[in-house]
Amino acid sequence: MTKIITISREFGSGGRELGRRLADRLGIPFYDKELIRMAADDIDIEEHIFEMYDDAFMEKKEVEYTPFSSIYEVPMSDQTFMAQSRVIRRLAQHGPCVIVGRCADMVLKDEQCLNLFIYASFKKRVQRLMTRENLPETELRQMERRVREIDRKRRDYYQYYTGNEWGKPQNYHLCLDSHKAGMDACIDAAIAYMAHLD
Amino acid sequence: MTKIITISREFGSGGRELGRRLADRLGIPFYDKELIRMAADDIDIEEHIFEMYDDAFMEKKEVEYTPFSSIYEVPMSDQTFMAQSRVIRRLAQHGPCVIVGRCADMVLKDEQCLNLFIYASFKKRVQRLMTRENLPETELRQMERRVREIDRKRRDYYQYYTGNEWGKPQNYHLCLDSHKAGMDACIDAAIAYMAHLD
Repeated sequence: MTKIITISREFGSGGRELGRRLADRLGIPFYDKELIRMAADDIDIEEHIFEMYDDAFMEKKEVEYTPFSSIYEVPMSDQTFMAQSRVIRRLAQHGPCVIVGRCADMVLKDEQCLNLFIYASFKKRVQRLMTRENLPETELRQMERRVREIDRKRRDYYQYYTGNEWGKPQNYHLCLDSHKAGMDACIDAAIAYMAHLD
Repeated sequence: MTKIITISREFGSGGRELGRRLADRLGIPFYDKELIRMAADDIDIEEHIFEMYDDAFMEKKEVEYTPFSSIYEVPMSDQTFMAQSRVIRRLAQHGPCVIVGRCADMVLKDEQCLNLFIYASFKKRVQRLMTRENLPETELRQMERRVREIDRKRRDYYQYYTGNEWGKPQNYHLCLDSHKAGMDACIDAAIAYMAHLD
């Protein structure tokens, strides 16, 4: 039986691509960045502001995390998270789908989900990103720093919003190395496992 | 293509049973405690001494960890580990098999293996052991302590002999929750994943 599938992933592990391919295989919707726009509509914040605060946590921009909205008196980044969470719950009500990132596993902890964590060795993830972005060898050190930094921010984001440890197996049904056997191996394994879920 | 499969597991997760069933499904040998006896033969130590030092690390007995043999001048527990490692490598040369515990993933790190980590929530593991050992509710606290203690010893053992972190996803191909979808789910997922390994 097809479920809602949430994917957490190390940067460069190919978790997003894997999620998209898994959704294609199962013929169900795939959600990632679109969530942001849908969430923006949901709480009626201008989209570019919304994206700025979200990206500030997830990517590399330096902005202040704790501006307070005059209406809600909660930090803007928390408003973003709460709005995204509402959208995630709404999507989950519509039926099976694949949702990447945004702590969807914890947002939907009361739903019937399959929670995956996708990872690969640091070296392989850096190589994958260098190839994908067609970068020269001179950019290697910078890419290594970027991978460490984005992983750290994902870990912080997950810890901050869920209180749990990002990438700890016990938070997921399955944790899969996406490099050692390739993405099809992960997709087949996830589908085989999911077939046994109630 | 069937490989050598190594299984690390949290205490009470059913990793050993899972390994045995996986071996049955694949029609290949399964190795666990037998390793100790084979290793004992290998270095010609009396079996009861051998088992005592091995169990001291893995289970709950209190013995001194650092007696020195007059022949090798390395701690007896290290001799045990080295002897087991030799046996594991010998078994691996004979072809596909399933090996549970004993840091087999790291002992065979230069071989073509599928390395699995099996876990389940603390609560479910305690429940499983209580049921398996047919214990009354009054024994619950003691079983909880036992699970924590054996997990801690497995973690220490792995850390001591491999220098790596036990249960960290990046050390394994696949990490599987054995309770949420059941053992057949884990077995099917492992077989589906393994089919893609070179």
